[in-house]
Amino acid sequence: MTYCLGMLLADGLIMIADSRTNAGVDDFSTFKKLHTLCEGPDRQIYAATAGSLSISQSVIGLIQEGLPAIDGSEMTRKLSDVSSMFRAAQLVGEAVQMANRTVGAALAAIHMSSSASFLLGGRVGDAPPSLYLIYGAGNFIECKEEAPFLQIGETKYGKPILDRNIRADTPLGEAVKIGFLSFDGAIKSNLGVDRPLDMMVMPTDPGVVITRRIEKSDPYFNSVSERWSHMLHDAVRAIPNPPFMN
Amino acid sequence: MTYCLGMLLADGLIMIADSRTNAGVDDFSTFKKLHTLCEGPDRQIYAATAGSLSISQSVIGLIQEGLPAIDGSEMTRKLSDVSSMFRAAQLVGEAVQMANRTVGAALAAIHMSSSASFLLGGRVGDAPPSLYLIYGAGNFIECKEEAPFLQIGETKYGKPILDRNIRADTPLGEAVKIGFLSFDGAIKSNLGVDRPLDMMVMPTDPGVVITRRIEKSDPYFNSVSERWSHMLHDAVRAIPNPPFMN
Repeated sequence: MTYCLGMLLADGLIMIADSRTNAGVDDFSTFKKLHTLCEGPDRQIYAATAGSLSISQSVIGLIQEGLPAIDGSEMTRKLSDVSSMFRAAQLVGEAVQMANRTVGAALAAIHMSSSASFLLGGRVGDAPPSLYLIYGAGNFIECKEEAPFLQIGETKYGKPILDRNIRADTPLGEAVKIGFLSFDGAIKSNLGVDRPLDMMVMPTDPGVVITRRIEKSDPYFNSVSERWSHMLHDAVRAIPNPPFMN
Repeated sequence: MTYCLGMLLADGLIMIADSRTNAGVDDFSTFKKLHTLCEGPDRQIYAATAGSLSISQSVIGLIQEGLPAIDGSEMTRKLSDVSSMFRAAQLVGEAVQMANRTVGAALAAIHMSSSASFLLGGRVGDAPPSLYLIYGAGNFIECKEEAPFLQIGETKYGKPILDRNIRADTPLGEAVKIGFLSFDGAIKSNLGVDRPLDMMVMPTDPGVVITRRIEKSDPYFNSVSERWSHMLHDAVRAIPNPPFMN
């Protein structure tokens, strides 16, 4: 299990991923799922992964080694050479298809259905940040401002609070806070999602990209979680009971 | 899609079901999913259904017609004759298996996987109310006070608020209100869940069973939904933004 969230806002891009992985209920472990795929003076590209760990690690490996050139030459195709985030999404989608043909086919041969999905976010050159969701088949969609967030993994527990509160004009600090509340709900309701969380915030105005790991001892996350619990209890109590139950 | 919720509390049993059904995204309709299976002076038994409508309707039909007698006689087995809710759950589980062997097998022949799950709640004789979840294979579990609610269908959106607020000693009126908040979240985040809702409240102390349909115009549900939205917005704003984002 996993939960990863990407928010593409007017002020910038936010990606948050949990780190809980499990193979069956008796084999839980911690794997970082927010990866820095490419970092250079003209580009920063990140991916968050959900689904089969063997497929997602294969995809990350293929991308880092470089995909075979189309003309059969020795020049591999890498994210350091793509001209846009759209081209980056195409390259990652192609790597997903390659992993499906190798790892995926090997698993299918023993009747295991397996796939991985990705949130791909970042910027290339002077373009504003963008965010893509790459599905298990390698096809993808781009995040647009009418629906300014994308999720993969255990998405449902934390979706209502995003639906109610995240708009394209939500400021970055507030969006991180709402993102944490979304993770808090998923963590409380599903053993397959847990801290540490990894997050990345890329402001639209070129500047410093903030990356941070949120441990179980993180004082801000813990205070948000506790205050939220109290406020929800108070809010529930403040609403009158149904008149037909009196 | 569907969302059904059963809560078994010290004060009584509550069952709530939505009524949204769809076959593909272009064929939405409204079907009541909370059924009165048996009503008599010594018993009241209700079921809420999720999953394939053709399978769940077959199961309800089989139960109402009566299941074949085990000794091959003409006496059918009905809920009006069972001696306990456990026996009722066994009979419904058997009906699910019969429907799987007929309707389910016909669907499997055209490569459609199909199943239905049930919340079965009520009381027989002087026993306190009880609540069962009957899975698609006909096996079942009983609700116990350590985890005083069971859900079927689109369960995840509305689970965090139940995890935070529903305890075995939650009073009935407050539990109905929290149940409505759980449905409000699921309805807001998933087109496959919608009003009208049907609900049933059976107090532990023998008395009047309350049944009620909650229409889209229901003033109490609408006021709960609106107040909750405002309170969540205010609560989000009251929590400070992350210090590392300043």
